Amino acid sequence: MNDPQRLILALRDALGDSAVLSTPHDMEGFIEDWRGRYKAPATCVVQPSTVQDVALAVRICAEHGVPILPQGGNTSLCGGATPAAGGVPPVIISLSRMRRIRSIDAANGSMVVEAGCVLQTVQEAAAALQRLYPVSLGAEGSCQIGGTLSTNAGGTSVLRYGNTRENVLGLEVVLADGTVVDGLRALRKDNTGLDLKHLFIGTEGTLGIITAAALKLHPLPTHRAVAWFAPTGPAAALEILGMFQARCGARLSAFELMNAAQLQMVLDHVAQRRNPLDAMHEWHVLVELADTGGSDEMNGLLEEVLSAAVEGGLMVDAVIANSEGQRHALWEIRHSVSEANKKGGMGLTTDCAVPVSAVPAFIESATRAVHEIVPGLPTVIVAHFGDGNVHFIPFFSFDAWRQIDDQAAMAARMRHCVNQAAATLGGTFSAEHGVGQSGLPEMAYFKTPVELAVMRAVKHALDPRQLLNPGRLLPALQ
Amino acid sequence: MNDPQRLILALRDALGDSAVLSTPHDMEGFIEDWRGRYKAPATCVVQPSTVQDVALAVRICAEHGVPILPQGGNTSLCGGATPAAGGVPPVIISLSRMRRIRSIDAANGSMVVEAGCVLQTVQEAAAALQRLYPVSLGAEGSCQIGGTLSTNAGGTSVLRYGNTRENVLGLEVVLADGTVVDGLRALRKDNTGLDLKHLFIGTEGTLGIITAAALKLHPLPTHRAVAWFAPTGPAAALEILGMFQARCGARLSAFELMNAAQLQMVLDHVAQRRNPLDAMHEWHVLVELADTGGSDEMNGLLEEVLSAAVEGGLMVDAVIANSEGQRHALWEIRHSVSEANKKGGMGLTTDCAVPVSAVPAFIESATRAVHEIVPGLPTVIVAHFGDGNVHFIPFFSFDAWRQIDDQAAMAARMRHCVNQAAATLGGTFSAEHGVGQSGLPEMAYFKTPVELAVMRAVKHALDPRQLLNPGRLLPALQ
Repeated sequence: MNDPQRLILALRDALGDSAVLSTPHDMEGFIEDWRGRYKAPATCVVQPSTVQDVALAVRICAEHGVPILPQGGNTSLCGGATPAAGGVPPVIISLSRMRRIRSIDAANGSMVVEAGCVLQTVQEAAAALQRLYPVSLGAEGSCQIGGTLSTNAGGTSVLRYGNTRENVLGLEVVLADGTVVDGLRALRKDNTGLDLKHLFIGTEGTLGIITAAALKLHPLPTHRAVAWFAPTGPAAALEILGMFQARCGARLSAFELMNAAQLQMVLDHVAQRRNPLDAMHEWHVLVELADTGGSDEMNGLLEEVLSAAVEGGLMVDAVIANSEGQRHALWEIRHSVSEANKKGGMGLTTDCAVPVSAVPAFIESATRAVHEIVPGLPTVIVAHFGDGNVHFIPFFSFDAWRQIDDQAAMAARMRHCVNQAAATLGGTFSAEHGVGQSGLPEMAYFKTPVELAVMRAVKHALDPRQLLNPGRLLPALQ
Repeated sequence: MNDPQRLILALRDALGDSAVLSTPHDMEGFIEDWRGRYKAPATCVVQPSTVQDVALAVRICAEHGVPILPQGGNTSLCGGATPAAGGVPPVIISLSRMRRIRSIDAANGSMVVEAGCVLQTVQEAAAALQRLYPVSLGAEGSCQIGGTLSTNAGGTSVLRYGNTRENVLGLEVVLADGTVVDGLRALRKDNTGLDLKHLFIGTEGTLGIITAAALKLHPLPTHRAVAWFAPTGPAAALEILGMFQARCGARLSAFELMNAAQLQMVLDHVAQRRNPLDAMHEWHVLVELADTGGSDEMNGLLEEVLSAAVEGGLMVDAVIANSEGQRHALWEIRHSVSEANKKGGMGLTTDCAVPVSAVPAFIESATRAVHEIVPGLPTVIVAHFGDGNVHFIPFFSFDAWRQIDDQAAMAARMRHCVNQAAATLGGTFSAEHGVGQSGLPEMAYFKTPVELAVMRAVKHALDPRQLLNPGRLLPALQ
């Protein structure tokens, strides 16, 4: 029988008083997400310092039949890391005390870090040895490695280096019964059966708790070049992307699109941002080349491709950064997007991916679909164009939003019509944010019954009592 | 009850007479591997042309309770694609008639191909559109995409582009009960739960039958440069590898090591091969740079790094190819290794990977271990050094091998001591060849009980009746 006090006592006995938080005040930062959109009670919060203590906590929770919610930096955008309402309040296992860098092997291009390491700390430790850990995203100053792994985080360097998944060599994981999978091999090649790490990457803590990872490092780029340009439209941007790929190969490390509404939002709501071009054009792209060693030919490469694009009538205007300060200023615009959109109104963020070749068609059909619901509604668009990942954001002013009777229904309807536009083009409703709680209805709608059945079969095989992160990722059977 | 004739009739009824082979003569090429090392009977061979027919065949086999062996080009090096002795003879499902290229999307960098496509056909179709499908290996003229996926094939371009796994976007798979997973999304990013493709890649047909794949394409390199040099030893080679990574970044696309015994074997047994350097040195490295667009600076880059290595006392001699013909000749030496070793004697091939930084230590300790069994035994070494993947081959002359009483025991003992040396350094006994039949004892020995238990749990979840490719990959429970 579930007796919360007995469970809390057992956890204190096993892990020490200081590792268990149970007063409402102490649990405050753990039971609500950073944006304040998801909040529900927990039985207590456990903060283990070692993998053995994680395993111990899991075994004790399992004995008591109480669900377990692993938590990293609590920066999920879809309620993936905070308790779900209803059911037995879970024990939150916070990984934030497991933050050692266990080892770095520069010659092998690998480092072993614990789940609670902050992403930026990992990036910096690699850079100190002239190595790159390429995963980079807005929350990197507070999100933890464990969270980026369990959500297979994306970000701005996927075009060149792939998602988080592609930058992991091995994992240490605590299973639902408290056994530990020691898979921290730092090997580039290992073909010995089912690659277990891929069970846990991207499954949001529902199959196991990641406690440490062997990460893959790359040579640190030594030269960068950045330009900002205004293509005549998404189709032209696609063509220019192809020109960059053909001319610059692996140097191409970012190709980010935004529309005028997005740029204006940044200019209006974030201090010290200015339009890099002389006029406000309908579409904007930030392109970055990066190289390790080699000669510093890259501004020349940028110029060459951009000139060809102008000649081809694909582009209206462009500027190439000619100092570190200018490069920084261009990236600052891109990095200010979340802050600007939060201040500027009520944006219904979506996270679709389609084949890169289908991005123009997606933008067209999603716009049409949104306007069928609210004619003329502004849409803010910011896209990792090179990955086919478009954040297409139907955007209400705070005033307009207040006048909507059923806001939840409007939000769901808007997002669904955008996601449907992506699905029709062979796309997905979640490119990088994951499913969490908010994506459950779309998961039930867009994944095929066969895909869901396979996921449920694996879930049942590894966590038959459904103790790990319930109410997340997999929709309940109807 | 299993009645082979009734099963064969049912398959003929469903798929047509011409799709079912059952005479010993017709089945000859399917029940024995290409090297003639594994042979066992099959109930029949089915050659479906569509995914629906694969599903139908699987359902019929499942109704009869007869195991199923999916087969591609039958080029496995470890008995992964031919029947295992004992048990009910399986129905072989050959994918060779499913060989359509369903679509290519150059702008998205993707193509959808059926499992029976020969690897080289896929490479050529991509190249015709200025795209690269990077997986490249000795058997590429006959191995099939389905086989490369089910074994997560490695080869000579892993250093730059990763294993097969890293070059797959989506899969179409027939499950053990005949249902079809339609996962052919060609997306760079898709975070919607468990990434199902990773269940099937590398699991050698034990969890499902891959019938088609969405593959990832890259910009086609337009410039290449190749050098051959003699480092003073493996530790010097490691240092030079680091210099190339720091100076050339992503251009570095191959770094292959061989010892004098391996080079001599090629010179002795393959016509028209010559030593690229003036003398026979103890160690040799082939290094390749490749670039897309950019300037043709790469011979200069090679020269720069090699000069620095000479100055640092890391290298004895070097030559840079200065024509396409010379580049080809250097690669021909590397590609002649299997043929030479087959002709030159009895090589006990191993397929270890260790952290790249541990390659010198591995070569040392594996040599010591082999010499403890047979003092002074020659060892042939050929390594994908940049991936940490070393084929360390204890080598007997045909004469010496004939004098060994228990050859199987000697082979097992030799391989095990080499694999043990790798494991001690955090390595694996199978980097790229897979497990198949021959790797089962090592799988039982080197994987942890927890890892094997998780693999068995997933196997049980997806194939509870153990019908898919039995006797492969997962050792039987003791």
